[in-house]
Amino acid sequence: MAKIITISREFGSGGRIIAEKTAEKLGFRYYDKEIINTAAEKSGLSKNIIREVGEYASSTSSLLFNLSISNTLGGGNMSMYDSVFTAQSKVIKQFADEGNCVILGRCADYILRDYDECIHIFIRSDVQSRIDRIVNVYKEGGDSPEKLLREKDKRRRVYYKNYTGLNWGDSGNYHVVLDSGYIGVEKCAEIIADIAKIK
Amino acid sequence: MAKIITISREFGSGGRIIAEKTAEKLGFRYYDKEIINTAAEKSGLSKNIIREVGEYASSTSSLLFNLSISNTLGGGNMSMYDSVFTAQSKVIKQFADEGNCVILGRCADYILRDYDECIHIFIRSDVQSRIDRIVNVYKEGGDSPEKLLREKDKRRRVYYKNYTGLNWGDSGNYHVVLDSGYIGVEKCAEIIADIAKIK
Repeated sequence: MAKIITISREFGSGGRIIAEKTAEKLGFRYYDKEIINTAAEKSGLSKNIIREVGEYASSTSSLLFNLSISNTLGGGNMSMYDSVFTAQSKVIKQFADEGNCVILGRCADYILRDYDECIHIFIRSDVQSRIDRIVNVYKEGGDSPEKLLREKDKRRRVYYKNYTGLNWGDSGNYHVVLDSGYIGVEKCAEIIADIAKIK
Repeated sequence: MAKIITISREFGSGGRIIAEKTAEKLGFRYYDKEIINTAAEKSGLSKNIIREVGEYASSTSSLLFNLSISNTLGGGNMSMYDSVFTAQSKVIKQFADEGNCVILGRCADYILRDYDECIHIFIRSDVQSRIDRIVNVYKEGGDSPEKLLREKDKRRRVYYKNYTGLNWGDSGNYHVVLDSGYIGVEKCAEIIADIAKIK
């Protein structure tokens, strides 16, 4: 059985709930916010900083933002983005070494690319299903949920590209890609757990 | 239940056998070579021409090849590539209108993009699994199966781009992407049939 499942996702695709359900079905630990908490504890960086820069490129220029945060906090050779990436990477590897877990986002597929017994998932969906979820489930987006969706996707895409050199959502990076709007979150979790069991 | 399943695939990924197994599990018709035969009958084009240009861009320059075949055969305003694409598109739509079928390759996902009750699948795999399949199952590739694999993928990618404007294998074009080397062809067919049943 695969012992580690990484789940990457488009914003509004329900990737988080799929990850939680998959972990529940398999009796695996589920890591999302705990990555932030543990990385903060171990690195001394604040949880807010890790939450803000730990999965998204800046909404303006990532380079400018990088320099500005680095300067503000008196960063040395390493930018704040790099410090957060390094801190999160260490925590993700530590969790993976402990086995049997589902890890959400944060380039975990790339960080654990050389780990055996690891299955990499990407959850996507059509724009309308994602807007419906953002508005009705997340209660976000205000007057322009589509703008929020495109902005968040863009920032995740740039962040992923910066740290992996790969294209976020490129099917070649994952063992399974599922359209949650078409398949439904419950069935997605069932399929992932099922594949994990046979591997 | 989804009535039409399109399956696109990387060369050597076992997409054809997965498509056959999926059709068998669901009791659906399976269309692959029959698209060539029917398109030949209806268009008057030869089966060999359709087989050669119906899914692959030329191995050299597709534009040059296009012009050369068009001139050789006295093509009018439409190039041979375009004639084959049009002939195959008509046949694919005809098969889809008859319902309950699995269609392999030939940009069927794009041709049927506006059809309801249609599920689009992409089968991929790691390079080593594909080389193993090309050598051991297809008995192809000679001394350089990896070269053959890269060449065929490239020609499919260019063909797909030419006729759809989209990127072949981009996860956004499909409801499901599966790594057959990791999951296994039998399990891939099982997952696809299972999803088709619930939709």
